[in-house]
Amino acid sequence: MAVSSLPCIQSLRAPFKVSSFLSAGVCGGFSKKKKINAIVFASWRKLEKEVYLQSKVDSLLDGIKWDDKGLAVAIAQNVDTGAILMQGFINRDALATTITSRKATFFSRSRAALWTKGETSKNFINVHDIFVDCDRDSIIYLGKPDGPTCHTGSETCYFTSISDLLKEQEVEQNNLALTTLYSLESTISQRESELAGQNGKPSWTKRLLLDENLLCSKIREEADELCRTLEEKEDSSRTASEMADVIYHAMVLLRLKDVKIENVVEVLRQRFSQSGIEEKQSRVTTQS
Amino acid sequence: MAVSSLPCIQSLRAPFKVSSFLSAGVCGGFSKKKKINAIVFASWRKLEKEVYLQSKVDSLLDGIKWDDKGLAVAIAQNVDTGAILMQGFINRDALATTITSRKATFFSRSRAALWTKGETSKNFINVHDIFVDCDRDSIIYLGKPDGPTCHTGSETCYFTSISDLLKEQEVEQNNLALTTLYSLESTISQRESELAGQNGKPSWTKRLLLDENLLCSKIREEADELCRTLEEKEDSSRTASEMADVIYHAMVLLRLKDVKIENVVEVLRQRFSQSGIEEKQSRVTTQS
Repeated sequence: MAVSSLPCIQSLRAPFKVSSFLSAGVCGGFSKKKKINAIVFASWRKLEKEVYLQSKVDSLLDGIKWDDKGLAVAIAQNVDTGAILMQGFINRDALATTITSRKATFFSRSRAALWTKGETSKNFINVHDIFVDCDRDSIIYLGKPDGPTCHTGSETCYFTSISDLLKEQEVEQNNLALTTLYSLESTISQRESELAGQNGKPSWTKRLLLDENLLCSKIREEADELCRTLEEKEDSSRTASEMADVIYHAMVLLRLKDVKIENVVEVLRQRFSQSGIEEKQSRVTTQS
Repeated sequence: MAVSSLPCIQSLRAPFKVSSFLSAGVCGGFSKKKKINAIVFASWRKLEKEVYLQSKVDSLLDGIKWDDKGLAVAIAQNVDTGAILMQGFINRDALATTITSRKATFFSRSRAALWTKGETSKNFINVHDIFVDCDRDSIIYLGKPDGPTCHTGSETCYFTSISDLLKEQEVEQNNLALTTLYSLESTISQRESELAGQNGKPSWTKRLLLDENLLCSKIREEADELCRTLEEKEDSSRTASEMADVIYHAMVLLRLKDVKIENVVEVLRQRFSQSGIEEKQSRVTTQS
């Protein structure tokens, strides 16, 4: 496919604004001739950039090892949580479309047509970057979904666990493929609805959820213990353990405030995509 | 494929020990006849379980939508970090083998043969659970790698970013597909080697790395501010922001102690796979 317009390519990570060149034409302080020259120059620069980018994209698409049907595998992954949202196939057009639109686009093998995830549901997957594997036949769309990805309404398409299917008892087959932090988050939520643990007593998590004073004193204590592993030059394994304590107790507080760990990670991403750590520095400077 | 032995299937999540039945035969307090009966009973129970599990696995394998070449897609994901390690294809035998061996196994299309990741390098991917997608033609091997997954020595096979490839300047093409927390971890590491920021001053991260007192006072302060969002009933958005501060500052401390966030998440997983939160409860009870 000829990719006719590529203004967004460089903005996958750092926004590249062709319009900033063109806007020079409407600024004051230029003679008419200078204005025309500026517009011609800007248009020429824009064209030059587009031709350059076009050749880069063509070369990139040529470099993918398309299979005998002209396809490669594409995996959409949530940039904040790491959750694998869905997997589909792409052809050359689908990848080119994703590069330009930054909406995850696939090739439907059954319909033999391109389709952009979200074109019906509006739950697009906004692609922040694309990664190619070492064999150049598999790619990751790393991005942020606007809503649940699966057509069933589930957050991701992977909600059936084989270990559940192999259990002797029938179990509810709605068990998202969660990585550790998100699995812990889910466990903390479950504890909230439990009256008591197996031994008849409430679980430690439940006790923390019921007692804000206990919870806050634990968070302050664990943060202090984490610091002391540095101040008192304790083993690194102790640091890992104390950091785990900080995260776990703070996640119980998040549950009480109905904040998802995904929201927190999103804050971190937004901070450092706005030259984040420096943004933090400026906030601290203002505060102090 | 006939799967001849399935002792590990149920232990994907909760260890299922057939041996615990057999060991009854060597315990004291039984007469010889009772011992023989116990052994026969245990063997019968084992056989019954294996036949039952075999039928479950067969039914599960029948339920996968294998393509016209008898294949489906398999994605290996790190259970702690969420990193997509590699992607391959599986046939019926490859999936059955992974279920029994719990080592991620694929079908090599080029060699038309099964291969277990790590059979040469010893960097196996230890599969904790397997998830099937809504269409039943794509699966996730969720597990823990013994070492770098890629044959190049890279942690994962996805280390080429398309936004890097499309930049005007040539860039080093070794940019792992990192989700937000791990990208932040990488940024903190980079700051350590920087002398000064763009404005000639050291970045905030660099200042924290150079001043342990400042870092520890910030960690304690941020933990306190997080608690106050609960105690003083502040907005949830404030909680997310304070939690982000706690995580960021604590991650700077991790850098100084050479602890990876993956190590911390692994501690959390090990805790709650050992009936984790209750394990924590018992530790707290012992401490207090």
